[in-house]
Amino acid sequence: MTLDEVLVKEISSIVGEGNCSTRIADLYTYGFDSSIHHHTPDIVVRPRTAAEISELVKLASREGIAVVPRGGGTGLCGAAVPINGGMVMDLTRMNTIKEVRVNDLYCVAEAGVVYDRLNEALAPHKFFFPPTPGSGEACTIGGMVATNASGMRAVKYGATRDYVLGLEVVLADGSMIHVGTNTIKNSSGYQLERLFVGSEGTLGIITEVILKISPKAKKAAMVLAAFDRLEDAGKCVSNVISVPLVPSATELMDDICIRAVNKAVGAGLPDVQAICMIEVDGEPEIVAKELKVVEEVARRSGASSVQVSDDRKQMARWTSARKSVMSALSRLGDQLVSVSLADDMAVPISRIPEAVVAFHRIAEENQVIVGTYGHAADGNLHTKMLLDPCSEDSWKRGEKAVGQIFDAVISLGGTVTGEHGVGISKAPYMMRERPDAWQTMLTIKMAMDPKGILNPGKLMQWKGGIIRDLRYPCRDLCSK
Amino acid sequence: MTLDEVLVKEISSIVGEGNCSTRIADLYTYGFDSSIHHHTPDIVVRPRTAAEISELVKLASREGIAVVPRGGGTGLCGAAVPINGGMVMDLTRMNTIKEVRVNDLYCVAEAGVVYDRLNEALAPHKFFFPPTPGSGEACTIGGMVATNASGMRAVKYGATRDYVLGLEVVLADGSMIHVGTNTIKNSSGYQLERLFVGSEGTLGIITEVILKISPKAKKAAMVLAAFDRLEDAGKCVSNVISVPLVPSATELMDDICIRAVNKAVGAGLPDVQAICMIEVDGEPEIVAKELKVVEEVARRSGASSVQVSDDRKQMARWTSARKSVMSALSRLGDQLVSVSLADDMAVPISRIPEAVVAFHRIAEENQVIVGTYGHAADGNLHTKMLLDPCSEDSWKRGEKAVGQIFDAVISLGGTVTGEHGVGISKAPYMMRERPDAWQTMLTIKMAMDPKGILNPGKLMQWKGGIIRDLRYPCRDLCSK
Repeated sequence: MTLDEVLVKEISSIVGEGNCSTRIADLYTYGFDSSIHHHTPDIVVRPRTAAEISELVKLASREGIAVVPRGGGTGLCGAAVPINGGMVMDLTRMNTIKEVRVNDLYCVAEAGVVYDRLNEALAPHKFFFPPTPGSGEACTIGGMVATNASGMRAVKYGATRDYVLGLEVVLADGSMIHVGTNTIKNSSGYQLERLFVGSEGTLGIITEVILKISPKAKKAAMVLAAFDRLEDAGKCVSNVISVPLVPSATELMDDICIRAVNKAVGAGLPDVQAICMIEVDGEPEIVAKELKVVEEVARRSGASSVQVSDDRKQMARWTSARKSVMSALSRLGDQLVSVSLADDMAVPISRIPEAVVAFHRIAEENQVIVGTYGHAADGNLHTKMLLDPCSEDSWKRGEKAVGQIFDAVISLGGTVTGEHGVGISKAPYMMRERPDAWQTMLTIKMAMDPKGILNPGKLMQWKGGIIRDLRYPCRDLCSK
Repeated sequence: MTLDEVLVKEISSIVGEGNCSTRIADLYTYGFDSSIHHHTPDIVVRPRTAAEISELVKLASREGIAVVPRGGGTGLCGAAVPINGGMVMDLTRMNTIKEVRVNDLYCVAEAGVVYDRLNEALAPHKFFFPPTPGSGEACTIGGMVATNASGMRAVKYGATRDYVLGLEVVLADGSMIHVGTNTIKNSSGYQLERLFVGSEGTLGIITEVILKISPKAKKAAMVLAAFDRLEDAGKCVSNVISVPLVPSATELMDDICIRAVNKAVGAGLPDVQAICMIEVDGEPEIVAKELKVVEEVARRSGASSVQVSDDRKQMARWTSARKSVMSALSRLGDQLVSVSLADDMAVPISRIPEAVVAFHRIAEENQVIVGTYGHAADGNLHTKMLLDPCSEDSWKRGEKAVGQIFDAVISLGGTVTGEHGVGISKAPYMMRERPDAWQTMLTIKMAMDPKGILNPGKLMQWKGGIIRDLRYPCRDLCSK
């Protein structure tokens, strides 16, 4: 659908001419997020206020235009890709941190505030918003709420859902509501603020967030343990938890990831089957004590070498090596690019060893290279497929492997997405993972968005949300 | 409505004759919870399995019978009182702890498992489920989820909502669904498990709960600080938080509560305007360090005396004195009973001093005695009215004070219920507190329970949920 000129003018009068575009270059650009999906919208808007968003949604509701909210565009599953066209709503101008109330243990931020910016504002108060997503430099708070994003520190500090005290949301009819409270506790009715967590823009446009905040730990230190067997690394994670000891982060990387970062960024990590980076944080004397425990557990779990550091620079180097896995994988083989297909599965923590072994078996069977890494102590594992984007056969083998990985995860009692969200990529697997719950999700969706204008085609594949033109851009480019 | 004999037989055939009653004594008894409300149901059932519950709800849906789930009956707002009659569903036979998986940081319990029983099962593993409601000896996990219950430890450990990973729920049509996951993280669609938190049986019957669990702290210690001015006690709480230091519990009691427990149980607490019991927990060396900080903050905040203890018996005595406030208040004056009307308001933490001052002013203006206490560090305050149950005038003054207390709380940016739920008592105030969100709650309620059979008349006062015969039993008894 191309929007007629009168409509474009009306939209433009809401947000201002400079914040509204139908230029082909803009539409093409806003057709991407960080996933493999692409579809051009009909119009891009960049509202500055919730009132503008309310007006835009009222118009969209009246005209039956799809509205696709977009934060930092860092999502890996396509949740911000307008697969049915319509209006992409870029929320990055909504970037004001409105309140930092450390004595009340909360802050208030507009949806477009970038994660790292928020933590920079909290740092002088010795507080932080803990989830630590890998894309923290660019992702927005609103996007984190919409996907229940988390990252390295969820095992100790929880995911975004655990910090959302309240939200301002524009609903499908353009009305604005405030859910949740300014208080640490509330029992006053349905916890709608947590229903919107993970809703990926399908129930409303999140415009403002009240977040619980935590005091920052005074000190952190890390153990880097190397293993000759991948499953031993998995067992090490499980053994740490069962001490019991809850680390602040536990990053696992397999040999493919290690090789990739050593090659791409000269990370200098041990050339072994797997490594675990285990971080502990807290008061200095506890960190020292826990560090020793972790070191001992790592050795007992079969580590071939163990390094320990509380030097900020060294820890930053290790963390940076881990963070560069995703981009480094694309530079491992000449023809191969790293694609996000099965990107963030989660299993019960003790099933990690079985999961990593299964992923490797599936990769071998399908003759695809799969790099496995992730935040193992919370059961969350990433895989990246290295595919030849110009080979239809490579794609097919990759897709088959993805299906098998998801099946393995579900059979281990896990979920196809632990922290990135469903978007487009995992929508076909939702019914398999949640054979009885998806219908209730749909009931709520249809009650709250009866016209189906809010981010259609995401989360679930149901009648009202058929994907009509799904394209993998790299496939596309190769075929030209 | 009296149920006809055929229906009673059908119900009885589902749960077994011994688990189904229409005897007047049973109906009268099950017309109460721990609130001031009462209404007799038409039938009481005690199902043992989710399959039985599913059958019962199917029958109720077919016949249009109200279904009121009931846990330990410890609720203070009337959520388990069948104000429209119908079927009370006592879930206490659903009391199996199905799994304790410490390596996976979760456990699985049926809805009727008592809070303390669950923690007894977790204790040998050095784990616990932290919320610590005051009624922990009797309240059930299902009831805690249904009300987002918490208690003393929420400031450090969070409320029930922060621990619910997954649920088994029987919906209004009798179908059974599983929401959430067995994993610490999940981003796979709407966080329905958290929507059911606080839903008080109005969206479905919770039959089983997957709960995240935490390692238990190795040591705890307490500071008992006495204050000559109530607002100084409030400021002390706020000052501790802004260190920043997050205590594991912070209990505040005003002079009325202190007098009541000294009189009723010989607690021997200092005879002052207010006391704060501040608990810290963790590794022994940290407890020692934090204890000193808390002691110093208490003195700086104007404490007239400060006692410190890490002796388990002494701490148990102090905790027990605090826990006996509610019952002790009824023994303060001859004619007066303590009633739960405005029982668990929450405000932003820094507004605690203003809130306690406002409560005292309101009590004075309305010539009612109001005891104020609570978990101040999470902003949660209890008030109990001491009323003469035989005096209509006393009730009227009490009710007026309640309205003013709720108004004060809302104007301080707070909520009328921090941890007990809405039930009947606070339903009239929901629209005032949430002028724009209640309509969305209603949209979801009507979509998920179109016939309105699930716990009607609770949470909100809307067309389909009119309370038709609300009685305060003590008023009733006096008038006889």
